[in-house]
Amino acid sequence: MKLQLDCLPCFLRQILEATRKVTNSIEIQEKIIEDAIEIIKNYKKYKTPPELAREIHGLVKLYTNNPDPYKDIKKQSIKTAKNLYNFLKGFLNQQKDKLYWALKISAIGNVLDYGVYSQVELEKNIEKELKKDFALCDLKDFKKLLEKAKKILIIGDNAGETVFDKILLEELKVNEKFYAVKETPIINDATLEDAYDSGLHECSRIISTGCSLPGIDFKECSQEFLEIFNKADIIISKGQGNYESLSEIKKDNIFFLLKIKCPVIAQHIGIDTNNYVFKKQG
Amino acid sequence: MKLQLDCLPCFLRQILEATRKVTNSIEIQEKIIEDAIEIIKNYKKYKTPPELAREIHGLVKLYTNNPDPYKDIKKQSIKTAKNLYNFLKGFLNQQKDKLYWALKISAIGNVLDYGVYSQVELEKNIEKELKKDFALCDLKDFKKLLEKAKKILIIGDNAGETVFDKILLEELKVNEKFYAVKETPIINDATLEDAYDSGLHECSRIISTGCSLPGIDFKECSQEFLEIFNKADIIISKGQGNYESLSEIKKDNIFFLLKIKCPVIAQHIGIDTNNYVFKKQG
Repeated sequence: MKLQLDCLPCFLRQILEATRKVTNSIEIQEKIIEDAIEIIKNYKKYKTPPELAREIHGLVKLYTNNPDPYKDIKKQSIKTAKNLYNFLKGFLNQQKDKLYWALKISAIGNVLDYGVYSQVELEKNIEKELKKDFALCDLKDFKKLLEKAKKILIIGDNAGETVFDKILLEELKVNEKFYAVKETPIINDATLEDAYDSGLHECSRIISTGCSLPGIDFKECSQEFLEIFNKADIIISKGQGNYESLSEIKKDNIFFLLKIKCPVIAQHIGIDTNNYVFKKQG
Repeated sequence: MKLQLDCLPCFLRQILEATRKVTNSIEIQEKIIEDAIEIIKNYKKYKTPPELAREIHGLVKLYTNNPDPYKDIKKQSIKTAKNLYNFLKGFLNQQKDKLYWALKISAIGNVLDYGVYSQVELEKNIEKELKKDFALCDLKDFKKLLEKAKKILIIGDNAGETVFDKILLEELKVNEKFYAVKETPIINDATLEDAYDSGLHECSRIISTGCSLPGIDFKECSQEFLEIFNKADIIISKGQGNYESLSEIKKDNIFFLLKIKCPVIAQHIGIDTNNYVFKKQG
């Protein structure tokens, strides 16, 4: 998905919020916003939103002198999600179509963005979200491919969401299961450490995409990731950043699993914001 | 009120929306956003949000070669509001404390921002909004000053809202009533033409502030406005732009009448967004 003009004010707002999460220094906040303005000035350089996001969020690392400014937020999100694991498993075991609801649980994990929820808030929120059906769900196509699938790859998004994805992985009866995460910390996206911390190694092989942006850039991907990406029978791409990176790729075994939070993506998919989708590419 | 970092992404979003209202040309949209980014880069030059707003919205005039790009939107808003006049008067006549509800009607006019409502939508919306009380209302102080007031000045905001203000003016039993508007068109703010079109000359003397920004800049004000401003027993300042310009002025006869639409103003006043306030200065 191409970068839109709408992304520019949104990135500026995001980086201001992000900066305030990690520093109270007005001086640093000003420096970051000023540099961010310089970056968005050259918006035509960036093909997709995640490419611009990497540059802008890099400023937080630079000015706070911290290679992983969201470390604590990520740890808290994983902890909160792990505390919900049994509750979610219990809910899932009561459902008739377990695959549908496992996908839904994984999609709901997407609300863990920025780890802003307390345990109580998240639990309350999740019960409400669990009642909502997908606004778009290509389950039939997925089940058809799944029957013969030997290799499945999930491309992860945020830390915390990873625990919800574990529940999905546990429902997938496939020989080889891979879970891909970011090579280096970027915003609150899951890294190898976060994936292990979430227990994903118990039900899949954790790999790195090789990328350091909140999405996928094929020029950056590791050889290992590319091989798995190319050989997988099914790929599940989680969240908005991965959607923005992969939505134009011609590959009919990719399924996008996300909560739509942004009007530009909503328009691209043709489904309103705040809805959940499980969408087959093409 | 000082310009905040939060204003920068917000202005960029606003100008993109505004540009799209008046032109479909992607090329012009890009040029305007690029120039707007240049302007917000120098945000420290601007003391208040309206000063920056003038620069940014000036770009729409420049690139569309149109000194009044919101002319049609303003005309439509006034027409829609005039069609509601009898309904609003009818509502007002059923109320016990007519002054309170006349102030409330004037505040509700503030939802006419950008004239995005159709007649039907506005009517539906207004019935709902009419039921909401002010979240903050310094009516007692106002009534006290009003008892002895001879001169009252309303500083207007948007075209369309002007018709709602007329209803307020008609309830104010004061010898001399003044209604101040912008000197030149800026966004959808009311000008002399819009004020006459709204019938404000029937119940007040319409004057210009002398300003061409969506608020007040004392360096720009006409002598006539300054004299009335200084001699008025009561000043009612409508909307956010005027609040941003006047909230630091030491003058205890100013009352701010607005709907809070922005989180920065919400924090400054200490009342959440989407609420109505009628607040005495100081």
